Amino acid sequence: MENLREALQAAIAAGEAVRGTTSPNPPVGAAILDREGRLVGTGATEPAGGPHAEVMALREAGDKAEGGTAVVTLEPCNHTGRTGPCSQALVDAGIEFVYYCHPDPDRNAEGGAAHLRQQGVGVERIDRDVDTLRPWLAAVRNNRPHVTLKFAQTLDGFTAALDGSSQWITGDLARRHVHRDRGRRDAIIVGTGTAIADDPSLTARDGQMELPDQPRRVVIGGRSLTGHARNLHRLGFEQYRGIPEALWQLWDTGARDVLVEGGAHLASGFVESGMVDAIQAYIAPTLLGQGRSVLSEALGLSLADAATFQLQNITRLGDDVLLELTRKD
Amino acid sequence: MENLREALQAAIAAGEAVRGTTSPNPPVGAAILDREGRLVGTGATEPAGGPHAEVMALREAGDKAEGGTAVVTLEPCNHTGRTGPCSQALVDAGIEFVYYCHPDPDRNAEGGAAHLRQQGVGVERIDRDVDTLRPWLAAVRNNRPHVTLKFAQTLDGFTAALDGSSQWITGDLARRHVHRDRGRRDAIIVGTGTAIADDPSLTARDGQMELPDQPRRVVIGGRSLTGHARNLHRLGFEQYRGIPEALWQLWDTGARDVLVEGGAHLASGFVESGMVDAIQAYIAPTLLGQGRSVLSEALGLSLADAATFQLQNITRLGDDVLLELTRKD
Ligand SMILES: NC(=O)c1ccc[n+]([C@@H]2O[C@H](COP(=O)([O-])OP(=O)(O)OC[C@H]3O[C@@H](n4cnc5c(N)ncnc54)[C@H](OP(=O)(O)O)[C@@H]3O)[C@@H](O)[C@H]2O)c1
Ligand SMILES: NC(=O)c1ccc[n+]([C@@H]2O[C@H](COP(=O)([O-])OP(=O)(O)OC[C@H]3O[C@@H](n4cnc5c(N)ncnc54)[C@H](OP(=O)(O)O)[C@@H]3O)[C@@H](O)[C@H]2O)c1
Repeated sequence: MENLREALQAAIAAGEAVRGTTSPNPPVGAAILDREGRLVGTGATEPAGGPHAEVMALREAGDKAEGGTAVVTLEPCNHTGRTGPCSQALVDAGIEFVYYCHPDPDRNAEGGAAHLRQQGVGVERIDRDVDTLRPWLAAVRNNRPHVTLKFAQTLDGFTAALDGSSQWITGDLARRHVHRDRGRRDAIIVGTGTAIADDPSLTARDGQMELPDQPRRVVIGGRSLTGHARNLHRLGFEQYRGIPEALWQLWDTGARDVLVEGGAHLASGFVESGMVDAIQAYIAPTLLGQGRSVLSEALGLSLADAATFQLQNITRLGDDVLLELTRKD
Repeated sequence: MENLREALQAAIAAGEAVRGTTSPNPPVGAAILDREGRLVGTGATEPAGGPHAEVMALREAGDKAEGGTAVVTLEPCNHTGRTGPCSQALVDAGIEFVYYCHPDPDRNAEGGAAHLRQQGVGVERIDRDVDTLRPWLAAVRNNRPHVTLKFAQTLDGFTAALDGSSQWITGDLARRHVHRDRGRRDAIIVGTGTAIADDPSLTARDGQMELPDQPRRVVIGGRSLTGHARNLHRLGFEQYRGIPEALWQLWDTGARDVLVEGGAHLASGFVESGMVDAIQAYIAPTLLGQGRSVLSEALGLSLADAATFQLQNITRLGDDVLLELTRKD
C-alpha cells in the first residue's frame, strides 16, 4: 500500500510536469513498480505523435517491469493511433497488475481495461480525481476546449481604475503564478479591445526569460489589428471573429485547455455563452470604490440571475489570494 | 516547555471565549501551572467591574498556585482600579514565574512586569500575537474603538443586484459565522440608509435563538428613523449624526471593538476617514456583472489611490470564502 501510494504520487507528478505540451493528447503520468514493489520507472505523455506515458515508464523500467505493477492516471488506451495501444504494451512487458484513476472518455481509445483483463492482467480503478486531467477530460466530454476565465481584481471587484490604470493590481507572486500557468495552457485568448489597448505579449515568462512551453496567442473580434498590437505581430497570433468560431478552430487544431484573459467585454461574452468551465480570480487586498468591472454587462437584474460556480482551490500568493472555481455540475 | 505551550493555549482559548463581554477591559486569558508544571487553573476577564483574568485563574488554582507559574495573554496590570492590581495578586499567591504575550499599552496599568520583578518574581515575554487582543490593543493605542468593516459580496464585488436584491448572497455557513462574530463585538453600526431600507435587527442569532452576548445597535446619520426600522425600535438602538461623533461616544461609553455592516455610503465614509482597522469580506463564488458596489464612491481616479490592506486570514466557509484584512502599518 505504501509503495502504491508512492507510485501514484510519482505518476501524478509526472503528468503535471508535461501539462501544456501534450495536446491533443492528455497529460498522463505513469509509474512502474517491480515484482518487489520498488519504483523502477516513471513516464509521461510525450508531445503529439510521440509515445504515451505507459510506454515511457516501461522504457525506463526495462526488464524490471516483468511481473510488476503499473499505476497510470488515465485508463490505458486500446487504440492504435499514431502509437500502438498502451494496454498491449503493458501486456507485452509482463505487467501483472494495473491501477488507473480516470476511465478514458475517448470513444476511440475505450476498452483498455477490458483488453488488459482479457489478457489476464489484474485491473483496478483508484478513486482519485487528478487535477491535471480535469481540463482534458471536460474538453473531450464537451467536444470543445476547456475554458478558464482569468482576471486580476481589487477586493471590491475592479480590474482597472477609472483612468484605465490596471498594471500591478496584484503583486509579484501572483504575476509569477500567472506566467507559470500560461505555460501549462494550449492557448491564451484576449479580445480585440485588449489587444489594441494593451499591446500584450501573451507569453509565459520568468522575469525577462521566456519559459520553454509557450501557448498559442489568440485574439477574438472582427476589428483589424493592422497598425496595433506590435508585440502580437512580432510573436505571431491567430485571430477569430467570434467565440464559437475560435473554440471550434482551436479544438480542431488540437487545443484542449485555453485561458481567457479578458477584457471585460470578451469575458461577458464567454460567461453569457455558458462555456466558462473554470475561473481564476486573483484578488488584491485593496479597495478602489469605483473602476472597471470584471464583466461589462449585468447577467440580469436580480441576484437569481447570477452565474454560480463551485469553489475548488484557495491559494495565498503573498498578500494576494487566488480563488479557483469550477463549473457547477 | 510542553506544559508551557499547553498553558498558553489554555490562556488564549479562555480569553477568546469572553470576547465581546469585557469592554472597556481587554478579553485577557490566564492559566496557572503548579510547581510540578500541571495545569491547575484557567481564567478570563469578567465583565467590567469584575475580577481580571489572573485573579480568576488564581481562584481556580487555590493553594496549588504556590510556587507555580502564570501564563497571561496581556502583561498583568499594576493599577488599583475597580479591582486591585493583578501583579500584586500573583505575588500574594506565591507565583514564582510569569509569562505574558503583549505588554500593557494602557498608561494607567503599566509597570506590572516591573513590579513583579521587584518582588522577586521571574518575568518573561512570549513573542506571540494574540488575535483576540488585536482590536483592544489598537483601540487603546488610537483612543477610539477598533473598526472592522464587513461586507458580503459576489466574486466580482457586488453587494446587491441592480434590483436591490441582496439576501443570501453568501451561504448558510457564512451567515452563521457573521452571527457568531457579532456576538464578539461591542457594537454593530449601520447607516440610516440601511436602517430604513432593510429594517435590520442587528442581533447575534443562532437560527431563531438570540446568542447570550448581544452587541449595541448603532445607526449613523441625521435622518429620523421615526416610522421606519421597526426592529431597531423594538430592540433599542443608539443614533449618532456622523462617524466622529459616533466613535467618540462609543469610546466614551466603553466600546472598544465595533463592526460596520454598511451600506455602501457609510462604508465609503469610513474608508475615506482612514479609520478602518480591519476588513471582513465574505465572498460568494458567483458573478453578477453589474450591481451595487461595496463602496459608493471612487477613492480616486487611479490605481495609486486605492486603499491597501494586509491579508491576515483566509477562511473557507462552505462554498464561500472569508478574507480578513488589517490596516497596513
Ligand atoms: N486587469 C485585468 O485582468 C485585465 C485583463 C485584460 C484586459 N484588461 C483591460 O480591459 C480593457 C479592454 O477590455 P474591453 O472589454 O474593452 O475589450 P475586450 O473584451 O478585450 O475585447 C472586446 C472585443 O472582443 C470581440 N468579441 C468577439 N466576440 C465577442 C463576444 N461574444 N462578446 C464580446 N466581445 C466579443 C469584439 O471585437 P470586435 O469589436 O473587434 O468584433 C469586442 O469588441 C483594456 O483596457 C485592458 O487593459 C484588464
Ligand atoms: N450585502 C451587504 O453586505 C449589505 C450590507 C448593508 C447594506 N446593504 C444594502 O445597502 C443599501 C443601503 O446603503 P446606502 O449606501 O444607501 O445607505 P447607508 O450607507 O446605510 O447609509 C448612508 C447614510 O449614512 C449616513 N452617514 C453619516 N455619516 C456619513 C459619512 N461620513 N459618510 C456617508 N454616510 C454617512 C448618512 O445619513 P443621513 O443622510 O441620514 O445623514 C447617509 O445618508 C440597502 O439597500 C442595503 O440592503 C447591503
